[in-house]
Amino acid sequence: MKSITLAEIQAMDRLYRANLVNNLSGFKSGNLIGSINEEKVSNLAVFSSVVHIGSEPPLLAMVTRPTSVPRHSYDNIKKTGFYTINHIHSGYYKEAHQCSAKYDRSRSEFKETGLSEQYIDGFHAPFVREAHLKMAMEFVEEIPLTINDTILIIGRVLSIHLPEDSIMDDGSIDLNMLDSIAVSGLDTYHKVEKLEKLKYARP
Amino acid sequence: MKSITLAEIQAMDRLYRANLVNNLSGFKSGNLIGSINEEKVSNLAVFSSVVHIGSEPPLLAMVTRPTSVPRHSYDNIKKTGFYTINHIHSGYYKEAHQCSAKYDRSRSEFKETGLSEQYIDGFHAPFVREAHLKMAMEFVEEIPLTINDTILIIGRVLSIHLPEDSIMDDGSIDLNMLDSIAVSGLDTYHKVEKLEKLKYARP
Repeated sequence: MKSITLAEIQAMDRLYRANLVNNLSGFKSGNLIGSINEEKVSNLAVFSSVVHIGSEPPLLAMVTRPTSVPRHSYDNIKKTGFYTINHIHSGYYKEAHQCSAKYDRSRSEFKETGLSEQYIDGFHAPFVREAHLKMAMEFVEEIPLTINDTILIIGRVLSIHLPEDSIMDDGSIDLNMLDSIAVSGLDTYHKVEKLEKLKYARP
Repeated sequence: MKSITLAEIQAMDRLYRANLVNNLSGFKSGNLIGSINEEKVSNLAVFSSVVHIGSEPPLLAMVTRPTSVPRHSYDNIKKTGFYTINHIHSGYYKEAHQCSAKYDRSRSEFKETGLSEQYIDGFHAPFVREAHLKMAMEFVEEIPLTINDTILIIGRVLSIHLPEDSIMDDGSIDLNMLDSIAVSGLDTYHKVEKLEKLKYARP
């Protein structure tokens, strides 16, 4: 067992530290965020920080760094008020990862990666056609995390699109059937296999 | 492909909706949060919302519901200023899940589930001896999410404890070697297998 102190973490090379600390939370969700700007240029970005905030109303949050990286998604979400969340699956994780390249604002990650732009029921933002589970999202609120200048973006789920047989009797979704992947660190993609669905725990 | 609208989500039975919406973010991290109260009663709680906030300084956040569920972890973290984060692995996910039962404040989930309390280098809060990756955390800040009365708890990593050979040359941690699990919804545990570690993406 090796112990690493905060002082040792702070003394690390910047990229080494980023790789290490990005693994500490454990496995992460892997999603593509779809948005579009006022010039109708669509955008896709990988987020591994989408997290459940509440189910009534249905709210999801994600963390973004608006000043230290290009912030096309953030700008589009703020200006239009809408975006999509698309689960990455094992059939397109390479194309999804390529969306993390720093493309110029005038270029769409859909065109650059070959992923298919999809519009559903007139919703403003583009979905990823290849995704098995995708959601239309409405921007609700941004919360600045002043400690490190990141921002928590909170959105409300407006609609969910998924295969009907992936919904189980109790409302749970069979994410294994959907082949949703998990992410670790900044660059590693994983397939996921169910161990067990447990009963509600009582003392 | 089935489409579900916000109105349909809002009309669902409460538990059915909770099961559905808790799956929407995709696979989640699975961690046990260790803490201790002023009467020296230790506490363990399952959190599937631990998320990376930044690596410099190393910060992790998690979401808690202080008013709608017993808030032993929250109370202990606020009063003592310290807690631990312990990755759940496939060898003890059943005991970990059992920690979500509503035990009285006077009872320790360590004793109730048989997990082993561990103290390292005089750190105030208890670690889970069985965990392969565990961290000492210092409470930094709480941010109320007023939209649904949840709270984002932000903490700083004070130390990391893990097998030395799980750290790769670039600083990444081999979470597959550590056998860390992923969680979906409220009750389902998964093992995770690496597909691929990809290169930094360039246009």
